[in-house]
Amino acid sequence: MSPVDPADLTARLIRCPSVTPEEGGALTLLEEVLTDAGFACTRVDRGGTANLFARWGDRGAARNFGFNGHTDVVPVGDRAEWTADPFGAEERDGHLWGRGAVDMKSGVAAFAAAACDFVRDTPPDGAVILAITGDEEGDATDGTTALLDWMAAQGERMDACLVGEPTCPETFGEMMKIGRRGSLNAHVTVTGVQGHSAYPHRARNPLPAMARLMDRLASETLDEGTDHFDPSTLAVVTIDTGNPATNVIPRQTRATINIRFNDRHTGASLTDWLREECDRVAGEFDVTVDLAVKVSGEAFLTPPGPLSDLVAAAVEAETGLRPVLSTSGGTSDARFVRVHCPVVEFGLVGRGMHGVDEKVEIAQIHALKAVYARVLRSFFA
Amino acid sequence: MSPVDPADLTARLIRCPSVTPEEGGALTLLEEVLTDAGFACTRVDRGGTANLFARWGDRGAARNFGFNGHTDVVPVGDRAEWTADPFGAEERDGHLWGRGAVDMKSGVAAFAAAACDFVRDTPPDGAVILAITGDEEGDATDGTTALLDWMAAQGERMDACLVGEPTCPETFGEMMKIGRRGSLNAHVTVTGVQGHSAYPHRARNPLPAMARLMDRLASETLDEGTDHFDPSTLAVVTIDTGNPATNVIPRQTRATINIRFNDRHTGASLTDWLREECDRVAGEFDVTVDLAVKVSGEAFLTPPGPLSDLVAAAVEAETGLRPVLSTSGGTSDARFVRVHCPVVEFGLVGRGMHGVDEKVEIAQIHALKAVYARVLRSFFA
Ligand SMILES: [Zn+2]
Ligand SMILES: [Zn+2]
Repeated sequence: MSPVDPADLTARLIRCPSVTPEEGGALTLLEEVLTDAGFACTRVDRGGTANLFARWGDRGAARNFGFNGHTDVVPVGDRAEWTADPFGAEERDGHLWGRGAVDMKSGVAAFAAAACDFVRDTPPDGAVILAITGDEEGDATDGTTALLDWMAAQGERMDACLVGEPTCPETFGEMMKIGRRGSLNAHVTVTGVQGHSAYPHRARNPLPAMARLMDRLASETLDEGTDHFDPSTLAVVTIDTGNPATNVIPRQTRATINIRFNDRHTGASLTDWLREECDRVAGEFDVTVDLAVKVSGEAFLTPPGPLSDLVAAAVEAETGLRPVLSTSGGTSDARFVRVHCPVVEFGLVGRGMHGVDEKVEIAQIHALKAVYARVLRSFFA
Repeated sequence: MSPVDPADLTARLIRCPSVTPEEGGALTLLEEVLTDAGFACTRVDRGGTANLFARWGDRGAARNFGFNGHTDVVPVGDRAEWTADPFGAEERDGHLWGRGAVDMKSGVAAFAAAACDFVRDTPPDGAVILAITGDEEGDATDGTTALLDWMAAQGERMDACLVGEPTCPETFGEMMKIGRRGSLNAHVTVTGVQGHSAYPHRARNPLPAMARLMDRLASETLDEGTDHFDPSTLAVVTIDTGNPATNVIPRQTRATINIRFNDRHTGASLTDWLREECDRVAGEFDVTVDLAVKVSGEAFLTPPGPLSDLVAAAVEAETGLRPVLSTSGGTSDARFVRVHCPVVEFGLVGRGMHGVDEKVEIAQIHALKAVYARVLRSFFA
């Protein structure tokens, strides 16, 4: 058998319209390719989400290396702004064009191609696992989490995992991720007593309390950063009341804040702080302040060590660049994997992901496959 | 001719569906009644608003007393909540039921009835003027203002004016108005730079600036009240952003505040203060803060004197209560009349106005007519 062409596989994946939560044929295609290469494949669908587990080698082998990624993509947005068919995988100017070209059908294609070639050419003493989900861009409730739950129940395990998300800001090879900040959304509802603007003493306006609270929260310095993390940040993302009448003092107003937090905090510690501030302002203004917090992910770190060294060395060998060990950016499914085993992330330049005319440089897909192949060789060496 | 029954006239007016800006037949009915009683009537319509000017006596007479009121009503609201036809003028439990029963078809009927009887029974040495608008509840641009503009152009004038709006909080006779606080609405728009919640340093979030500004404005004590006025009040009535995405820092947010101000301030002085506060926060947060102020009316006072004494004495004689001289409450068309001549306000108990099942006690309509009749007799005595 000839090597699997990762650019060709990327193109075929782009042609699968797998906008979350649609499977779109993407996991079916990967299942075919991986089965042909000798992987034992299992669809681990849950709650309407399609997921694919693939293993080459024995369950419970001495050494197990895993890749994680997703085939679902965000919606196309304004189709009229695209100069290429978002699901056409047109090849133009040395790029493949289409939704998911960067995030992250190329990444999945690259690690699938690397894994297929590796197990055929140099069968390792161990197992290679691919855990691929169809819901990373959605609420991810039944995505990588479902795969990990199923793996735990089956006694499947990875000793280390590499997530193939884009990680490089500008230049391929410059950055990998060894952790991620946590993220939470807090929904605040302030309730007072409605009334007439001309008689404010008969009402209890929730808006001054909301303004005071949001000013305080936004003014707080959460920390100055930690060894491997940027400072935590808090963003008030919306305040809404929806009162069209200038002669009416409204009964209620709502706000949402988003906190990206480092390893100095937890979702619970921040929730405690938020609740204290809510209670404080409720007392000052004699209003009711409700708080609902949803923690999307805790901060986590795979401290610099064997896994990050191995991946960084592979990147450097293939690109000439020693990648920075970063924890910046949004969340990824690494936040789920990290409970299972040490996890790091390395992938393409992320520019253009989620935008119109998303496209990936074809040469970069091949380079990424080479990095992943070298990671496999090093791990099983 | 027999006396005009003010309750009957109120009922006939309620049956005219004169929801702003509809004339609904209300002014036409009054024109008939007043013409029959010897008034010279002129429709002073402007910009789609119907208005009625009626004068008994000569233009430019030695003494001229005016009444002002409106026949338009606010919308019915939820029809299903009404237990009576809002335009049926049903008589039940000693009340007339319907939209405008309190605000202020009964007031208009009472002064029209009082004026008709007065000029017939004791023709005065002077003129009685009724300036009645079909747009007080709307934006009032072409309502009483149109009447006053027309009067000025025609050389018509009033030496004193009584506005027949409801003025009593609980008990008929307890309160009259000798002025009103001013009112302004300020619309604040804060604009920053949109961005991703994970990278707040690349964005400029307008919400912390908005929160700080609203907290400051709402915390300000504008004054402690003046001789005849309650303290000025400021109400933040809405803050809105409309950002549904928790991972997006919005570009813009808007708020509206309403200020009810006494004679220590003017619309201009408050606008200056608001602009200073907007500029201050714009500098602190490096955002753009736009301010648009609409002054609905300046504060005004007809200082206690002959007119208020005359009206208060009439109220006391008919009700046994000496009315408090108040400046509380919202705005009324007295804010326009006060530029023309001294103006005070006296009318019914205002409870239930603008609500469902609006109703007026029939006995109160008769009592109000008696007060207005006594005012006319005293003025021309
Ligand atoms: Zn992704
Ligand atoms: Zn009114």
